[in-house]
Amino acid sequence: MSGQKVLVVNSGSSSLKFQLFNTAKGLTAVAKGVIDQIEYLSQLNWASNLHQDLVGCGHRVVHGKDYPRAALVDDAITKLIQDGAAMAPLHNPANLLGIDAASKVYPGTPQVAVFDTAFHQTMTPGTYSYALPKDICQQHGIRKYGAHGTSYRYLVQETSRILGKPDNELNLILCHIGAGASLCAVEKGRSVDTTMGLTPLEGLVMASRCGDVDPAAVLYLLEHHCGGDIGKADKLLNKQSGLIGLTGHQDLKLVLDDAAAGKEEAITAAEVYVGRIRKYVGAYLMKLNGKVDAIVVAGGAGEASFDLRQRIFSGMSAFGLEVDFEKNKAVKRGKAACISTDGSAMALHVIPTDEELSIARQTLEVIHEE
Amino acid sequence: MSGQKVLVVNSGSSSLKFQLFNTAKGLTAVAKGVIDQIEYLSQLNWASNLHQDLVGCGHRVVHGKDYPRAALVDDAITKLIQDGAAMAPLHNPANLLGIDAASKVYPGTPQVAVFDTAFHQTMTPGTYSYALPKDICQQHGIRKYGAHGTSYRYLVQETSRILGKPDNELNLILCHIGAGASLCAVEKGRSVDTTMGLTPLEGLVMASRCGDVDPAAVLYLLEHHCGGDIGKADKLLNKQSGLIGLTGHQDLKLVLDDAAAGKEEAITAAEVYVGRIRKYVGAYLMKLNGKVDAIVVAGGAGEASFDLRQRIFSGMSAFGLEVDFEKNKAVKRGKAACISTDGSAMALHVIPTDEELSIARQTLEVIHEE
Repeated sequence: MSGQKVLVVNSGSSSLKFQLFNTAKGLTAVAKGVIDQIEYLSQLNWASNLHQDLVGCGHRVVHGKDYPRAALVDDAITKLIQDGAAMAPLHNPANLLGIDAASKVYPGTPQVAVFDTAFHQTMTPGTYSYALPKDICQQHGIRKYGAHGTSYRYLVQETSRILGKPDNELNLILCHIGAGASLCAVEKGRSVDTTMGLTPLEGLVMASRCGDVDPAAVLYLLEHHCGGDIGKADKLLNKQSGLIGLTGHQDLKLVLDDAAAGKEEAITAAEVYVGRIRKYVGAYLMKLNGKVDAIVVAGGAGEASFDLRQRIFSGMSAFGLEVDFEKNKAVKRGKAACISTDGSAMALHVIPTDEELSIARQTLEVIHEE
Repeated sequence: MSGQKVLVVNSGSSSLKFQLFNTAKGLTAVAKGVIDQIEYLSQLNWASNLHQDLVGCGHRVVHGKDYPRAALVDDAITKLIQDGAAMAPLHNPANLLGIDAASKVYPGTPQVAVFDTAFHQTMTPGTYSYALPKDICQQHGIRKYGAHGTSYRYLVQETSRILGKPDNELNLILCHIGAGASLCAVEKGRSVDTTMGLTPLEGLVMASRCGDVDPAAVLYLLEHHCGGDIGKADKLLNKQSGLIGLTGHQDLKLVLDDAAAGKEEAITAAEVYVGRIRKYVGAYLMKLNGKVDAIVVAGGAGEASFDLRQRIFSGMSAFGLEVDFEKNKAVKRGKAACISTDGSAMALHVIPTDEELSIARQTLEVIHEE
């Protein structure tokens, strides 16, 4: 366990995930786990001698507003994370607790904030602006920020490596499909659009989040179902909707299996879920004028479910995509695979994402820049 | 002015538009106008002898929930229109006033309700369902209903005539772009998706409506800007957003001219407005698996603005659409025109819509069925 290390910290509302990387071998994960409180880190066996080897801690921060890159945590960055809490009330305060605790356990070690929003700050005003009153939006910072940027940054790098094409020449549609899910349109390696918005609620149907709805439906529910209680409405949209709202449970595999078995409620839920993804694949094909090197699927469900990928990407021959369903079936968990046919004009890849490695890379970059 | 007549009534919140059709010549408009109150109808010169010739009054009704066709007004239909007022509080009560008044001015004459929502009731549950809690949606009737159905029904019939192909064989993307604006995906002559939702607020950017936004942004605005006042938030989204929110004025032509002149605010507004339409053209190409006979543009701005059409439909070569920009420039107001090149795999048509004629047709159909 000798050599320089980077500790990656993903501090959530209920627990903390960590992963330790050795920089000597080009960032190899050497330990990982979940703990209740970051203070326990220093009591773990391997962690007791860690301090002298540690070159930096990289912290996932969900909402960094319009900040365009990872950054060494100082007073201004702390303030930015506090401000972002208005759009990510569950995540940003927890992220800050993680940063504070790591600073105490490893005093003097650089703490780096890696924002999930940063990758999308290449979007133009014409893309990130809502058609809401301009002055009110400027006053409150209301605009599209996006999320999953750490995953998307990793996927662009991996796709570049796999296709043997420089990342700044790549046009991609990236699909991060997990409990939280979003799509990203990438032009010349940069995000030009994404489905999540001011918060991670917009866009796709998720495990418990509704994604796109008529804005008037939000007010209708608030008035007629929630008695004007904004917190109750927020909980309804974020925690009781999505797959759980449509079917009563949030396990996509179960929903797709029930749909395949002919259960009507599950068939509808699967159509809503898959249809929303297809909506944005179409929208992003259009955004990129149909010039797309590859569509890339990642995230828990995206990597695991043959059935989900088959449902999403069937019927796209007119757009130049032919899926090889044998290859799709044969995808192994944790392994990248091309699942389009040899003759397909557009490539379809499954690439296991690695957000922790992406955070470790960005952490090292920030430290080396300083 | 002899012969059977149909009176079409479009009763809005501030005034009433009417159009009179002679059925003898295959539904020819013989009079039209705007009046302050429908009671004045009987005082107009030509209207005094109208009663004996009148076979029916057709009323535009904005929200008919999931009712799938036009219908003779009876107690059940009146109740339906009253119920629909929860989703169209400005329109449905005004529509009912128009029906009541016409019943009094022309007693015994059949009154027919023609719903803007009816055309879209061929959408499947997988398309019209939001990913919100299922029981709450069923209880409140929360789902996608759509609007502009009267226009879309007319456009399908006209496109069928122009292309010389039966309507039940037509796959189309219909774009109704006026002060209110929506798109509709048509498969085999039937609506399979549309951008407006529970109410006419969802989807495209409009003159004063925001269209799609992060549902969380609605709650954010309500809490941080509107002091929890739901009516104020509703007004903000419906009346102070869209083009007027982005630029301070709601005239699309002015916005596009300012954008062409290099004004930054207008450039952004035009990108938001046009980008939203392109998003749904892409989504509906995908919905129809790329098999589209024609894209059809209609509505005030859609029919009038060469510039708008050029901005929307440029860069679609990869999807088989090549716009002939000379033909596009040469489009005359009120005249249908094909504006794609002769070699274009997908056709692009401008077709002046005629909602009043569509209402008159549907009114006659209902009367003949009785």
